[in-house]
Amino acid sequence: MKPLRTLLLFITCCISTAAQAQSRALVLQTDFGLKDGAVSAMKGVAFGVSSDLKIFDLTHEIPAYNIWEAAYRLQQTAAYWPAGTVFVSVIDPGVGSARKSVVAQTKSGHYFVTPDNGTLTLIAESLGITAVREIDEQVNRLPGSSRSYTFHGRDVYAYTGARLAAGVIPFDSVGPLLGTGVERIPYQRAAFSNGIVKGNIPILDVQFGNVWTNIDERTLAQLQPRFGDQLQVRILHGNKVVYEGAMPYAATFASVPEGRPLAYQNSLMNLSFALNMGSFAEKFKVSSGPAWTVEVKKK
Amino acid sequence: MKPLRTLLLFITCCISTAAQAQSRALVLQTDFGLKDGAVSAMKGVAFGVSSDLKIFDLTHEIPAYNIWEAAYRLQQTAAYWPAGTVFVSVIDPGVGSARKSVVAQTKSGHYFVTPDNGTLTLIAESLGITAVREIDEQVNRLPGSSRSYTFHGRDVYAYTGARLAAGVIPFDSVGPLLGTGVERIPYQRAAFSNGIVKGNIPILDVQFGNVWTNIDERTLAQLQPRFGDQLQVRILHGNKVVYEGAMPYAATFASVPEGRPLAYQNSLMNLSFALNMGSFAEKFKVSSGPAWTVEVKKK
Amino acid sequence: MKPLRTLLLFITCCISTAAQAQSRALVLQTDFGLKDGAVSAMKGVAFGVSSDLKIFDLTHEIPAYNIWEAAYRLQQTAAYWPAGTVFVSVIDPGVGSARKSVVAQTKSGHYFVTPDNGTLTLIAESLGITAVREIDEQVNRLPGSSRSYTFHGRDVYAYTGARLAAGVIPFDSVGPLLGTGVERIPYQRAAFSNGIVKGNIPILDVQFGNVWTNIDERTLAQLQPRFGDQLQVRILHGNKVVYEGAMPYAATFASVPEGRPLAYQNSLMNLSFALNMGSFAEKFKVSSGPAWTVEVKKK
Repeated sequence: MKPLRTLLLFITCCISTAAQAQSRALVLQTDFGLKDGAVSAMKGVAFGVSSDLKIFDLTHEIPAYNIWEAAYRLQQTAAYWPAGTVFVSVIDPGVGSARKSVVAQTKSGHYFVTPDNGTLTLIAESLGITAVREIDEQVNRLPGSSRSYTFHGRDVYAYTGARLAAGVIPFDSVGPLLGTGVERIPYQRAAFSNGIVKGNIPILDVQFGNVWTNIDERTLAQLQPRFGDQLQVRILHGNKVVYEGAMPYAATFASVPEGRPLAYQNSLMNLSFALNMGSFAEKFKVSSGPAWTVEVKKK
Repeated sequence: MKPLRTLLLFITCCISTAAQAQSRALVLQTDFGLKDGAVSAMKGVAFGVSSDLKIFDLTHEIPAYNIWEAAYRLQQTAAYWPAGTVFVSVIDPGVGSARKSVVAQTKSGHYFVTPDNGTLTLIAESLGITAVREIDEQVNRLPGSSRSYTFHGRDVYAYTGARLAAGVIPFDSVGPLLGTGVERIPYQRAAFSNGIVKGNIPILDVQFGNVWTNIDERTLAQLQPRFGDQLQVRILHGNKVVYEGAMPYAATFASVPEGRPLAYQNSLMNLSFALNMGSFAEKFKVSSGPAWTVEVKKK
Repeated sequence: MKPLRTLLLFITCCISTAAQAQSRALVLQTDFGLKDGAVSAMKGVAFGVSSDLKIFDLTHEIPAYNIWEAAYRLQQTAAYWPAGTVFVSVIDPGVGSARKSVVAQTKSGHYFVTPDNGTLTLIAESLGITAVREIDEQVNRLPGSSRSYTFHGRDVYAYTGARLAAGVIPFDSVGPLLGTGVERIPYQRAAFSNGIVKGNIPILDVQFGNVWTNIDERTLAQLQPRFGDQLQVRILHGNKVVYEGAMPYAATFASVPEGRPLAYQNSLMNLSFALNMGSFAEKFKVSSGPAWTVEVKKK
């Protein structure tokens, strides 16, 4: 027995320990809910790939078949996870149709395992996609599952995501390279002209009833608002004005009295509307989606 | 200091690291919901047994006291977790009564920690039970908890499951061997005769409103259906016909237009009914349980 | 290469492995719900601090802004987690106001990262606080997040809690020592006089509809109840009697017929009321909060 050999083995052991410590997170998103066993079966398959995997949930409460909301939740959270994190997103109304099963790699070093049905619309814009590979189900499918037609989430997406996160396969082994393009859902962008900022309402902050817009920091800056300024806000559904009123641009909810409206930047640095200690969306019957438009100017 | 001794210590270190990496999953199921602290207290007790434990949820949304649904969720998911996984299932309407607290070991190498009240009905059939042991609460109970009468889920089941999963105790140390039998809930089996397949509706796919039957692949095969064949389907509650209609046997949801019914094999390979992009259960007021019967023949 | 050096490196490797195994749990509580990405973003930030962190949920279903319920859930669960566990609780109606962001250390060795707004009322009583430090956001804030005004839960609380749990900073480095006092919410205590035990209803056991009081074991003991004794129970909302009736003091739910009321000690060893297999709270329209009073005497 040579000391050198001992050392090499020893270093291997340390590196293997370190690699284990550095295993990448697997983050799951679905519209399955948590009342049945579907999500747990996905986690079982992932854990079976590697018992060292760190498995987390994004959410499983995406409304059924709502690809747009799935896209939004990925954009909301992905950047807060370290590079290397593998997201598995299964909102798949077209299961069994021609949509492709893919893994996308972003400039930020994140991976997204999903049907390519528009789920990556916002991630493509915010993080930038460097490569999209189609999952080769001859290789990347839970052994023994090939007779099942309907649970790709478990048999293909969770399985492939787990193998990627655990380092069982490199990204190259997912399947053939498709390029850098993904399916995109069209939507209205934030814009400034003639002293008015326009945008749409991609999502509500459901738990608190706050109204989030897609008006980002840079677009809003063209209006040059300062904390305390009164903003004139119109919210339209199609052509119909649903809300019109003035509210201060504020740094904190507590800077207006309880029950009063305010405009603020949310945690994504987008312009949002709220009632302090109340639900803006419920009180004024505002919802979200492509038909909702927002117009904001200084009063 | 001898190199050999270094090597032996070194190997011990590597093995201990490997053992840690191979720790078995602990998977929890209850009817407690996630609004209060009950599930978290169970996890705290388990984490206190070993901080290396990998703790997961099956679901905590089993309807209160619904032993049948608990049995179904275990069957739906257990086989997707690796051998050695320890399930703790606490749906326990008879807490404090004569039901026994047991750990069952299956032929597949899974463990189930639960009150023996019918929760293991379906697991016993699908995985096969090799041994049932009664939990000896003199040994396998959270120290200091003996004055509490009502939270066996935390003090006995989570504690015992964690000790088993972490390797603190072997299966033999759970308590006295009872044999291989468990309490069974009677229910109607899938059967074929005179060109008709019969079965019951054990559960709904709640999130999507799909109707799942217990008609397995082999029983269905006696009807010799091919994709595209029209099936005549009757659904009865007791003697009352709740639904009657024809639908194609299909490989994918997308093979019928939106809003149209189809028959398909679900992820458990059982015959199921759905509306493409809709809720079959809601539209036709179909529910689940022993009183629900299904009859299917070729049209 | 000296064998001694090899050994030292080797021991370092083993110790580092052991330290990893002993990493402390991070337990999250919020009123954010699980429908959007807020909780996942918090976990991403924590995982980014250390991929070895063991991250758990207490609950994210605290009713919006309900500081009292947050306080109750911490008390219900904290003692079941091992010493060293770091709780992050973000129920923060005063975000942006003068409330301080703190970390409290208890006699039991637990840590609580939270806005100091009353959330620690019950923990302070049950576990005892040894030190409170204000979070220095110059140091303990997610790098790059300083322009965001509204998501302290992710940028400050999750980040600081993760650094503490992972051992990146010791407790001393949280920020300046404030002392041992925290904000307290006033509430009615359990008391015994003239043969009557009084208390309030801090919380319902929401999943099952059981009514939990704050009448602890010692206070109840002054009434000297034995299992089987009939108790006369009055429940008042303000001055109005909402329920009045007799029920046995029982060790188990199964000791009364289905649908019948019983008084029992819950898993926190507090006096509680239930219907066997039913919802006491729903049937008798009982809720929880400071306005609810309970009076119990022997019949």
